[in-house]
Formats: sequence, C-alpha cells, structure tokens
Amino acid sequence: MCELLGMSANAPTDICFSFSGLIKRGGETGDHKDGWGIAFYEGKGYRSFHDPIASADSEVAKFIQGYSIKSTQVICHIRKANRGRVCLENTHPFSRELWGSTWSFAHNGQLKGIKNRPLKDYLPVGTTDSEYAFCWVMDQLKQLFPVKPTNKKKLWNEMEALLKNVATLGVFNVLISDADCLFVFCSTKLSWITRQAPFADAQLTDADISVDFKKETSDSDIVTVVATNPLTSNEDWHVMSRNEFAIFRLGIRTK
Amino acid sequence: MCELLGMSANAPTDICFSFSGLIKRGGETGDHKDGWGIAFYEGKGYRSFHDPIASADSEVAKFIQGYSIKSTQVICHIRKANRGRVCLENTHPFSRELWGSTWSFAHNGQLKGIKNRPLKDYLPVGTTDSEYAFCWVMDQLKQLFPVKPTNKKKLWNEMEALLKNVATLGVFNVLISDADCLFVFCSTKLSWITRQAPFADAQLTDADISVDFKKETSDSDIVTVVATNPLTSNEDWHVMSRNEFAIFRLGIRTK
Repeated sequence: MCELLGMSANAPTDICFSFSGLIKRGGETGDHKDGWGIAFYEGKGYRSFHDPIASADSEVAKFIQGYSIKSTQVICHIRKANRGRVCLENTHPFSRELWGSTWSFAHNGQLKGIKNRPLKDYLPVGTTDSEYAFCWVMDQLKQLFPVKPTNKKKLWNEMEALLKNVATLGVFNVLISDADCLFVFCSTKLSWITRQAPFADAQLTDADISVDFKKETSDSDIVTVVATNPLTSNEDWHVMSRNEFAIFRLGIRTK
Repeated sequence: MCELLGMSANAPTDICFSFSGLIKRGGETGDHKDGWGIAFYEGKGYRSFHDPIASADSEVAKFIQGYSIKSTQVICHIRKANRGRVCLENTHPFSRELWGSTWSFAHNGQLKGIKNRPLKDYLPVGTTDSEYAFCWVMDQLKQLFPVKPTNKKKLWNEMEALLKNVATLGVFNVLISDADCLFVFCSTKLSWITRQAPFADAQLTDADISVDFKKETSDSDIVTVVATNPLTSNEDWHVMSRNEFAIFRLGIRTK
C-alpha cells in the first residue's frame, strides 16, 4: 500500500488519481479508515483536499477523480493514524507560509519525543507528531534564514541536516514542497521514477492510487513520481537508501 | 450581488450552498470571472476550496453543492479582481496559522498604500492588497501578543483597532475567523441575521448563493449569517454601520 505519493513536473501536468482502492475499501475494515489528503501546486498557488472521514463512497476522492487539475507539484498522503485522533486538523498534508511561499508536508512513520522540542513561530493546530515535526523544521529554517536565502545550496544542506536530525527520533519518510522544489527524505521506504513524454501507456497503479498521465503533453515534458513503494513492477524505480535525501525541481532530480 | 458571506453556529451545521448564480453565470460576461473560495471550520480543523478559473460549469461549486460539510464557521468570498491577476494564489479566503489556530480572511474593497507597510512574520504568497492587509494584521497581532492572549477582550479591542486602522486606506469589509470567533468589520456594506431552530423554511438566497439549513437540527441550534447584502427581504437583517466591528461566537453576537 502506498502511503506517500509525490509528483514534480516541468510543466503543469494533468495527473489523474483514480483512488480506486481508497473508494473501494473506504469505511470497511481496511486501511483507509484514517483519512487522506492531497495538495496541488499551480504556480505559487496551493490547494489541498482533505478527507478525514472513513467513507465507503468518498465524495472528495470522487471529485478529485473527475476534476482536471493541472499541477507542477503534488503531495498525497494516506493516513494510518498512529498518534493523534482522526479528525480534519490531523489530516496530512499540513501547510505553512514561509518567505512568501506555501510549504506543505506529508509524513509516514512515528517519532518519539518530538514534542519535547521547543517551538517559536510555527505551532501545530492538531495533535500529531507529524505536524509538530513540520512546525519544528519550519521554525528552524526561519531561525537559520530570517529572510529567504539566495544561496539555494545552503538552504538544501540545512534542510537535509534538519530532516536527518528529526529522523533520529523514529521513522521519518517525508515529502515537503515549497512550490519550487519537492524535498524528499527517505527514512525507511521511498522510491522514485522519472518519466518523459510521450506518456502513452504511462499508468502507474497500486491498490490505492492510479496515476494516469493525460495524453495532451508536449515532447519536452518531464515528470517524476515518488511513492512509498514502486507503483509498477516492469520499470526501474530508484529505491532510496536509508536516510537518503533528494530534491526534485521541474521533474528532475537536482540533489 | 453577494461578495462576502460568513456563518457562525453553535453546533456543526449542514449549511448548503447552491451557487446557482455562480454556476449559471460562470465564464459568461457576468460577475463571476474572477474566482471564488469558501472555507469551512470543523472544530479546529480547516479546509478551503478555491476556484480561480471562470467556468460555465464550475466543478468545485458542483462538488460543494452536493457534499455535506457540517461546519461551525464558514467564510465565503466571490472575487471581483481589482488588484492582482486572477490566479489561485490571489483567491480568497487566505489563511495563516497564529497561536496554533488557522486564521482565515476574506475581503471586499480596495486599499491604497497598504503595501508600504512593513511585514515581519507573515508574507503574502500572491499579489493582492487583501492578502497583504491580512498579513499585516496577523503580524501586528503576533507582535502585540507573542503568545496567545488569555484576556479575550484585550485581543478583541486590539483587533478592532487594527481593522479600523487598515480601513483608513480605503474600503475594507472583512470576515476573519480563528475557528473560535467570526470577526466582522464593516467598512461600507455588511448585514447579519441570527436565526434559531427550527429552520423549516430557512432558505436565504440571492443571485449567487442560496443558504439552506438542513432540517436535522436540534431546538437549541443558533446560526448567524453575515452577508454583503441581506439575502431575504421579509426579515430584519441588521445592516451594519460604517466602521462597525462585530464578533460572533457560537452563533451569537458577543461584541
């Protein structure tokens, strides 16, 4: 089962999620009883859809299925509640504004002791360890760089150090986006694949999520998909190592 | 035409928006060419739906129409772009986290010179005067109260002073919510009405928005609706005065 799914593309991509597994299993005894959420970036714009309620007939999933959203970055999360009760404010992805950009965050795993760390400028709205960890990372970035850093590599190095630091507290597979870059940290399990147009039969699928690239693409299109597990078996997915950090920008791995 | 619409209720209320006007006029030469957005609070949880694209067949509006969201506070905005181009990041309501709550903001009007004011902790993602004004208010509140004030009246007084201050720059009809209270500032045009159960024929309507209170309510339910213009002609709406400030909590005006 896929718990995290991210996308980075060099052009607004009409990625389609079928959520067939979610819709089928929702509300049953299966895995989808703790909600899920998805965030789309359209340029600097951000919108997210959250469904905290187990539902055999998820209205939000149905809507996303039928609605064409052209996006350059996507973060999707299917929650299995470990900490924090099941409610809207505990549903990933979480988002905060930093340096005039909307940052979003989705996490798979459990952390021990994260809530002992002091927070200053970013406070959690819900009660999950995940949102707390996100706030801590945002806080640290803001303290390190009170204004947006012009040196991107410096930011990337600090980001990697912060994520590695949090990962010492448990399992910390994360997707983070600031509209510009998709930051990926693999604590235990994440894979990615980069694909280029044409996407003729480019359908990626598992029990929960099918990613279908629409045909109206140009020859120069590049799309990377990151997922908890490879979504296809006949392709070379890059299985990330423990504590591996990656950054994708415009569909291409840049770090 | 209604540009702002807010709701405050003492119990999760299944308020329905028909958006018949929006859907009918969307994409035509009419007023709905600059997008609209709606935010729902479910406890501390927050979710918003934005539609930046003129559409004769708004998928998001259709979805909201058919989807039952039980909410205690709602903020809805129909945009007529004055400043800032039409895109997702310029679509109200805007939101930011402060003191561990998600604050949201929708504005009708134009402001002159707001962007000359310095900002510290909250920066706009888009280019509208409205989001800038929201960031300025959040910034001021955070500087006045680095931690969440326990004295609510002090907060309310400061909030009123800040909104009056911004209103000196132009037209500033606003709805702000922090999940707990609905703050309303009337610069030129806002009305409100409080209704109690039973809501038998409680349908409020104008060209753009119909508010339909579902029948499954208890006798103790109280709901207040705030709108740019009264949505019914046969009831006593409270037409707010110039520079009047109001706070609604659990459906009741508390200031």
